[in-house]
Amino acid sequence: QDLTENTFGKGLVNVVAKDSSYSANFSLRMQSLFTSAWNISEDDGFGDVEANFLVRRARLKFQGFAYTPKLTYKLELGLSNRDISGASVYNGDTPRYILDAVVKWNFYENFELWAGQTKLPGNRERIISSGSLETVDRSLVNSRFNIDRDMGIQLHHEIYPGGNFIIREAISIAQGEGRNVTAGNIGGLQYTGRLELLPFGDFADYTGADFARETTPKLALGISYDYNNNAVRTRSNSGTYMLTDDGFFETDITTFFVDAIFKYRGISAMAEYAHRAADEAFATNADGTLTGDAVNIGSGFNVQAGYLFKNNIQILGRYTTIDLDDQVTQLVEDQYTLGLSKYIVKHKLKVQTDINYTDLNLGLDDNLIYRLQFEFHL
Amino acid sequence: QDLTENTFGKGLVNVVAKDSSYSANFSLRMQSLFTSAWNISEDDGFGDVEANFLVRRARLKFQGFAYTPKLTYKLELGLSNRDISGASVYNGDTPRYILDAVVKWNFYENFELWAGQTKLPGNRERIISSGSLETVDRSLVNSRFNIDRDMGIQLHHEIYPGGNFIIREAISIAQGEGRNVTAGNIGGLQYTGRLELLPFGDFADYTGADFARETTPKLALGISYDYNNNAVRTRSNSGTYMLTDDGFFETDITTFFVDAIFKYRGISAMAEYAHRAADEAFATNADGTLTGDAVNIGSGFNVQAGYLFKNNIQILGRYTTIDLDDQVTQLVEDQYTLGLSKYIVKHKLKVQTDINYTDLNLGLDDNLIYRLQFEFHL
Amino acid sequence: QDLTENTFGKGLVNVVAKDSSYSANFSLRMQSLFTSAWNISEDDGFGDVEANFLVRRARLKFQGFAYTPKLTYKLELGLSNRDISGASVYNGDTPRYILDAVVKWNFYENFELWAGQTKLPGNRERIISSGSLETVDRSLVNSRFNIDRDMGIQLHHEIYPGGNFIIREAISIAQGEGRNVTAGNIGGLQYTGRLELLPFGDFADYTGADFARETTPKLALGISYDYNNNAVRTRSNSGTYMLTDDGFFETDITTFFVDAIFKYRGISAMAEYAHRAADEAFATNADGTLTGDAVNIGSGFNVQAGYLFKNNIQILGRYTTIDLDDQVTQLVEDQYTLGLSKYIVKHKLKVQTDINYTDLNLGLDDNLIYRLQFEFHL
Repeated sequence: QDLTENTFGKGLVNVVAKDSSYSANFSLRMQSLFTSAWNISEDDGFGDVEANFLVRRARLKFQGFAYTPKLTYKLELGLSNRDISGASVYNGDTPRYILDAVVKWNFYENFELWAGQTKLPGNRERIISSGSLETVDRSLVNSRFNIDRDMGIQLHHEIYPGGNFIIREAISIAQGEGRNVTAGNIGGLQYTGRLELLPFGDFADYTGADFARETTPKLALGISYDYNNNAVRTRSNSGTYMLTDDGFFETDITTFFVDAIFKYRGISAMAEYAHRAADEAFATNADGTLTGDAVNIGSGFNVQAGYLFKNNIQILGRYTTIDLDDQVTQLVEDQYTLGLSKYIVKHKLKVQTDINYTDLNLGLDDNLIYRLQFEFHL
Repeated sequence: QDLTENTFGKGLVNVVAKDSSYSANFSLRMQSLFTSAWNISEDDGFGDVEANFLVRRARLKFQGFAYTPKLTYKLELGLSNRDISGASVYNGDTPRYILDAVVKWNFYENFELWAGQTKLPGNRERIISSGSLETVDRSLVNSRFNIDRDMGIQLHHEIYPGGNFIIREAISIAQGEGRNVTAGNIGGLQYTGRLELLPFGDFADYTGADFARETTPKLALGISYDYNNNAVRTRSNSGTYMLTDDGFFETDITTFFVDAIFKYRGISAMAEYAHRAADEAFATNADGTLTGDAVNIGSGFNVQAGYLFKNNIQILGRYTTIDLDDQVTQLVEDQYTLGLSKYIVKHKLKVQTDINYTDLNLGLDDNLIYRLQFEFHL
Repeated sequence: QDLTENTFGKGLVNVVAKDSSYSANFSLRMQSLFTSAWNISEDDGFGDVEANFLVRRARLKFQGFAYTPKLTYKLELGLSNRDISGASVYNGDTPRYILDAVVKWNFYENFELWAGQTKLPGNRERIISSGSLETVDRSLVNSRFNIDRDMGIQLHHEIYPGGNFIIREAISIAQGEGRNVTAGNIGGLQYTGRLELLPFGDFADYTGADFARETTPKLALGISYDYNNNAVRTRSNSGTYMLTDDGFFETDITTFFVDAIFKYRGISAMAEYAHRAADEAFATNADGTLTGDAVNIGSGFNVQAGYLFKNNIQILGRYTTIDLDDQVTQLVEDQYTLGLSKYIVKHKLKVQTDINYTDLNLGLDDNLIYRLQFEFHL
């Protein structure tokens, strides 16, 4: 056994070469989730409880620099059955094992070129690592509207216009059918742009909870616009492929996000608005008949705020509302969440729990869900 | 290249942090198996040989402590196609990549709380790692009756009543449909209890072969009782899901194990009895017609004994008998095994070989199987 | 974070035990590919461009020695969806995650015994790691005729007859249905022999490009002969399984390779001829009717040559021709490739690009393919 200078939460292996030719951080994550759910009927009150256990996420992560500190890499692998599901003819009928496989090159001043598969510059909640959330999981706005990961190139840039003000820009060109696709490009490419403003200086704007207990208010605003040319899936680059009787239904889909995060003296607040539109929302065959698929157009809004006590216990409230044009696929109207987290070692070792009241559409019973999650991130 | 204080068989990486905030052991295993099989007919004697090669097991293992030595973790991943098979609608149609993903917390004195996915406290042969067996593989009693892995929580405890006597207890609450399930809980939960007695003190009671050449006799006795409430699979938390014309056939299944292991002066002996019962063994539709599925009720007994010579060559004999109530699915009646192992570096580098005579049911030809296995565990 | 003596391109972890009981090199690879393709019609000229992105390869590799430097091991895992595709009933309907799982034992003088799953001693282009190619990818001769990986044993040997002359021999016995099979052996075994002559001494004969800028001409000649007894797949141990109405169509398939590689003052040249024959090429049912499957018999030839400039930019030309007996499955007749590579850190960090003109069979339009690939090998 060897002694290491490394400490908990910074990787299982964390090395830098003496000749500065590379660095490597190899870490692993496990997330165990316990869920209890009850239907609530107007007539009969609480229904029977459904309880289940899940290995929600398990991941291996590799990151560092190679050859020069200006060239960084990241490889993140999903291990849990939830992480890797999604085998289809479009990805060789195989598990979707790779989350990120990306190289980032700081080729000039504040410019960075990314190549490979990674998250697109979409909504903030999505870009925050699932291991750095202040909630048990992301909101329904994210699950309905996010543009997730894809393969292609991105250009990132930062400007310092004066004072502490920071402006960040990102543009991306991607294949447009999501991660792990091996079947080549169908339809056209996907173009994304994102602009971020941090008027009061840099802070942990992609991490939940205010561990730094910022002594001055910190704010980050983001706006993203995504145009997926001739998209073939119901949620732009994810969701069901819209098959027709002689191929794919192709339509231009745009997704728009505005988001903000604020931190001050242990308070953390985040809000996010998403809107999706399509040239033609209802998929049709060549003869004009409906195929039954439809682009999930509409909008959603999420707002949440928490306070971190000195003992690293955090309370949090969240309100989410969804408004899809297609009422049939919408299901959820509103969700109210009350969360409680104990951060033992920040986001590296924590227990999170929440209770969610969900108001369903179409006359369905409402439901109440209790969740208890344990996160371990070596 | 770096020099490491670590030695062969103790992981590829084996580190402890200087500030004692974590330790990590990352190891890998490969097991290659060559098999020859012959049918033996009463009339025609030996049939043609069937020979095949297999990468039987290949694994990555991560274990250590995190934050405090009282909080330990284990993540074990299967890599070989045999290890990861079992994709179904119940696990997201994905390979069953994760074997163990568990965190163990020694929260008070001799009490330890386990959470996540790992082996249930069932029969000894199952809990012994496949890499620490003194045989080429586990017995048929194990494959017919074991309760394998599941997701949930376990409480482990130890008592020292006096002398060298050790008593170990474990209770477990699990989901009850086996490992890697993502479809939530069907039917009820699974409850397991295990009691172990070590009257002559601690020893390597979960490792095959007596490498310590114990100078005084050592014995461990174990008894496990498992109750799977409203189970839906034919072997409790494994086997076929019992589908009916409008859902699942649910019945309470109990599994009972008694086992013992003994070591003394190079001798190692192990015995195991298993019994499974069900409230209703034959699955029926709502109208009472049989679905064709049946719980694999019945019993089995395995006994084996070996002697380890000074040159680390071990000879071993094994007798296994199976007695299922349902003769159709039973197939095997008795199996006689003669094994020979050469332990180059204990269980970390070894060659194992055996010859098995299997007496089949239903008038089927008996068969003879020769196996040669190479185990490498870095 | 720890300081390491290791340098970029030599693994993420690269250690040797102080007591010389093991060494371990753990490395990772990512390969991102961008492709543009145009059909070229005699009448209409260039067709529309098809552009796509792909995570072409991503791998984890473990290698080193264990117990004694004479016992070496290699475990290589595929991660990308392209790498792991190929789930079938023959491998437990699971991704083919393991590429190599092999142990090599130098048991006597120049003799080495290999056991497990790894590449068979077939054509040179195949045995060269996909990460050490001087082209974006291997030629069509390789994809049509190679004998890839299988499970079994190999015996390797070297002779030094005098001067710098080196003779290498390898013989192999394998299961004969390819890698990751769990269904056991169908048909007979596969036997392979390979002889290599290096008349002017050792050099990097299994690596593309002449980084050593050899000051004297270096040459390696290879010849392989493979006999797959009662083979059941259309390309010997790969390709479609030839099913009949009552089992498998079995026929003896032979594959023959001659190859050469030459390096001198930055010039690298490689040529390869392959020929496949079968006892009966057309699969038939028991009653003699054709099943529709046929062994891919015929021959192919590939030749390529490149020059590495002092700035580590390489230009390369390649010509490939395929001549299958069965014109229907052949498709490609000839392919002309012009390649350009920039080796930043040899094969560990490189950008490779090529343009391929492919002359198709059966009156199909020809096509032009442009590829840009980035390789990162920590």
